[in-house]
Amino acid sequence: MNRLMELGLHTDFYQLTMMNGYFMAGKHRQQAVFDMYYRENPCGNGYCVMAGLEQALDYIHSLRFTDDDIGYLRSFGLFNDSFLQMLKTFRFSGSIKAVPEGTFIFPNEPIVQVKGSLFEVQLIETALLNIISHQTLIATKAARVVKAADGKAVLEFGSRRAQGIDAALYGARAAYIGGCVATSNVLAAKMFGIPARGTHAHSWVQSFESELEAFRMYAEHYPDNCVLLVDTYDTLRSGVPNAIIVGKELRERGYDLGGIRLDSGDIAYLSKQARKMLDEAGFHNTAIVASNNLDEYVIAHLHLQNAKVDTYGVGTHLITAEDCPSLGCVYKMVAIEKNGVFHPKIKISENTSKISTPAVKRLVRLFDKASNLAIADLIMCEEEELDESRPLEIFDPIETWKRKTLTNYTYSDLLVPMIENGVKVYSSPSLQQIQERTREQFTLFSEEVTRLTNPHIYYVDLSEKLWRLKQEMIHAQHFR
Amino acid sequence: MNRLMELGLHTDFYQLTMMNGYFMAGKHRQQAVFDMYYRENPCGNGYCVMAGLEQALDYIHSLRFTDDDIGYLRSFGLFNDSFLQMLKTFRFSGSIKAVPEGTFIFPNEPIVQVKGSLFEVQLIETALLNIISHQTLIATKAARVVKAADGKAVLEFGSRRAQGIDAALYGARAAYIGGCVATSNVLAAKMFGIPARGTHAHSWVQSFESELEAFRMYAEHYPDNCVLLVDTYDTLRSGVPNAIIVGKELRERGYDLGGIRLDSGDIAYLSKQARKMLDEAGFHNTAIVASNNLDEYVIAHLHLQNAKVDTYGVGTHLITAEDCPSLGCVYKMVAIEKNGVFHPKIKISENTSKISTPAVKRLVRLFDKASNLAIADLIMCEEEELDESRPLEIFDPIETWKRKTLTNYTYSDLLVPMIENGVKVYSSPSLQQIQERTREQFTLFSEEVTRLTNPHIYYVDLSEKLWRLKQEMIHAQHFR
Repeated sequence: MNRLMELGLHTDFYQLTMMNGYFMAGKHRQQAVFDMYYRENPCGNGYCVMAGLEQALDYIHSLRFTDDDIGYLRSFGLFNDSFLQMLKTFRFSGSIKAVPEGTFIFPNEPIVQVKGSLFEVQLIETALLNIISHQTLIATKAARVVKAADGKAVLEFGSRRAQGIDAALYGARAAYIGGCVATSNVLAAKMFGIPARGTHAHSWVQSFESELEAFRMYAEHYPDNCVLLVDTYDTLRSGVPNAIIVGKELRERGYDLGGIRLDSGDIAYLSKQARKMLDEAGFHNTAIVASNNLDEYVIAHLHLQNAKVDTYGVGTHLITAEDCPSLGCVYKMVAIEKNGVFHPKIKISENTSKISTPAVKRLVRLFDKASNLAIADLIMCEEEELDESRPLEIFDPIETWKRKTLTNYTYSDLLVPMIENGVKVYSSPSLQQIQERTREQFTLFSEEVTRLTNPHIYYVDLSEKLWRLKQEMIHAQHFR
Repeated sequence: MNRLMELGLHTDFYQLTMMNGYFMAGKHRQQAVFDMYYRENPCGNGYCVMAGLEQALDYIHSLRFTDDDIGYLRSFGLFNDSFLQMLKTFRFSGSIKAVPEGTFIFPNEPIVQVKGSLFEVQLIETALLNIISHQTLIATKAARVVKAADGKAVLEFGSRRAQGIDAALYGARAAYIGGCVATSNVLAAKMFGIPARGTHAHSWVQSFESELEAFRMYAEHYPDNCVLLVDTYDTLRSGVPNAIIVGKELRERGYDLGGIRLDSGDIAYLSKQARKMLDEAGFHNTAIVASNNLDEYVIAHLHLQNAKVDTYGVGTHLITAEDCPSLGCVYKMVAIEKNGVFHPKIKISENTSKISTPAVKRLVRLFDKASNLAIADLIMCEEEELDESRPLEIFDPIETWKRKTLTNYTYSDLLVPMIENGVKVYSSPSLQQIQERTREQFTLFSEEVTRLTNPHIYYVDLSEKLWRLKQEMIHAQHFR
């Protein structure tokens, strides 16, 4: 089943009243450009990991209104009949550029650029924000957890606590992009080709007369990589000793004890004690898996305490991004066509950070040739060119006295064509490739940008031309 | 499209390895009983609003494994072939009792009771927790926001910030159960029969040469209940004056100005100023709608400041339950059948609050006959009877010296049969009826239980018999 089908009405009601209004005003074919961006990194992070694009494109590609949808809209007695007729044959015919999944993105830069008729660019706003905000948030949270785990494997275990079914499925996808090595959700594993992981629950142990019998039975059927949950009754007095007994029996059969899982209590203490018990019994290769309300902070502290954990199962905090469960993506009109020419548009606000940046844009990432590290992102007007052979002065768009001249740099464009005039021109990489891209990003940014706490604020600057345009438009608006 | 179909694999991998293990051990037909409950109210609230049951039952009802699913499972090389054959014809054949949607529920009481073969009760755990936890959380958050709005209408506006598509759709349903009067999501409105609401965005205003022209055009096409967004450029100097001009023009046409919407800035100040301007121009009936990062605390403070807001549009904080984005529902085995008799089961933990309560249970709500208010919930063994004509002593299960004798009480059973031996025996009420039930709950509990901050902790007690059973089982486990 495709969960991205039949979503014509998955939009805010005002998108439809505006579409109808544009239609009535004869403006629906007028072209416009919208930017999608976010204003602040979540969880105190220094970046976000772009994710969800593939699903957003699938949604747009299959965007239709069924007869049933049209009938429902008609029942409001609010929509023009010719407008409703037009919806029947609606297909998205605009163009979309976006930053590929797995790329690091930063506040206030356009991560998706939509060009098309007012009619269609308005319609897709809600679903686009909904899908990309969600996955980008979870991929970012996952990247933080994986960073904290410092090389130890992180498993995504959060399905039961996710905010609905899609949050579990697409959350697992996003977590994998962020660096998790597997998910517990079998459907997500199947849909996206993610490794599935899991062993048994407390109920398995409870269903047998004794813990030892339960372990024995599990080992009998799953001798390969047998991981036993040791905290149903008493971790150190019952669980670990029983696991060791079963481990010895496994060895007699030519197998080994794959691991034990700790799911409650003091993980730092229990993991060290369990490691000692396992080692003393000769089970040096038996892994210790820990779960139970973990997040990047708990994991970092477990490392500080020299906890003996080999694999982390992370659920609730990852799948909901518990401490920052929304990414405030917005979608703003930045240009509108009149007589074939695009005119920049701005949205003013009392709150300076909420003033949008006008114009159709180009987004480039600047790299230092000596270190190969990213220096800054530069937002330019679409038509601006960049000449690497000449020095480039960049400056902070608010504190404009903060300036820097780059002489030995290179750049890459971040906005890649995805859909052109309604036709998909981008073939999404595999999920493994996207995960690999995320991993690679860590080598392109300095440790100061990617650290978990109080990261360096990565520069996102405007070109001189774009900065001037924005200032002029603010003044024109404010002093008219 | 039914989003609850083809979800056989929407489960944790370990459920399937356990199912296969039970099958191999010849235990899969053994009957067991599981309780679903949560341990702590979210957001510092005094209760939760049960929600999501209809979808959980739909999921169970349509639970199947496709050939494709089976093929995928086979590819692991881990599952017994007869087991996979059995999955082909799998249908849920167990029985489920649950607390009806819209009912207030409390920590540690069974809100869903599942009885069936080990095979099937294990399989449904993940999706059951996923679906019911999500909707219960959002319904509860909505009830808090609606309570803070104190009679003013609350609109659910959160689709774009929801954690995926289902979170937007089913979140809108849950928000309606919690007391919201409408949603902005058109698909949710259509799926669940919720009123859809919304007018226009900043982009509408930006797409015209001037704000006044944009307002005029909107009013031309939507003269009935015309609500104008007044903060695109400058709320008090441009937006409200332009809205008043258009309001006067509407009156000349025999209509009125329905409302204005404030979406940024100081809502308390702006709403009072706008109210004054509207009143002075004779627009006493024009409503003021406020949105922009609202939650129950902001709304309560707006009331304290005498803000002149008639309707609240609440997005991000409601649809994600921003300050408490997960409800820690759990699903624990409480009894297992042996030779036709159910034996109670317990899960011990170092952490007292994580020790489960054993046995197949009955859950009743006790009401004071004089005040008609709920006094306490009582968890009993299933076979226990209650005689209202005799005094009933209840006591705190931890601080057992806290006792109370009820003499003038009545009760009602909370666990209602939903599915019996695989057959649905419950017909879900309409969503309107469920919302009405939530509204009614506020009259059944004292204000001390339903207030937003530091609520009274409502009593959830165990019967003497159940309490003794639990103690005995803890001791037997601990001192064996």
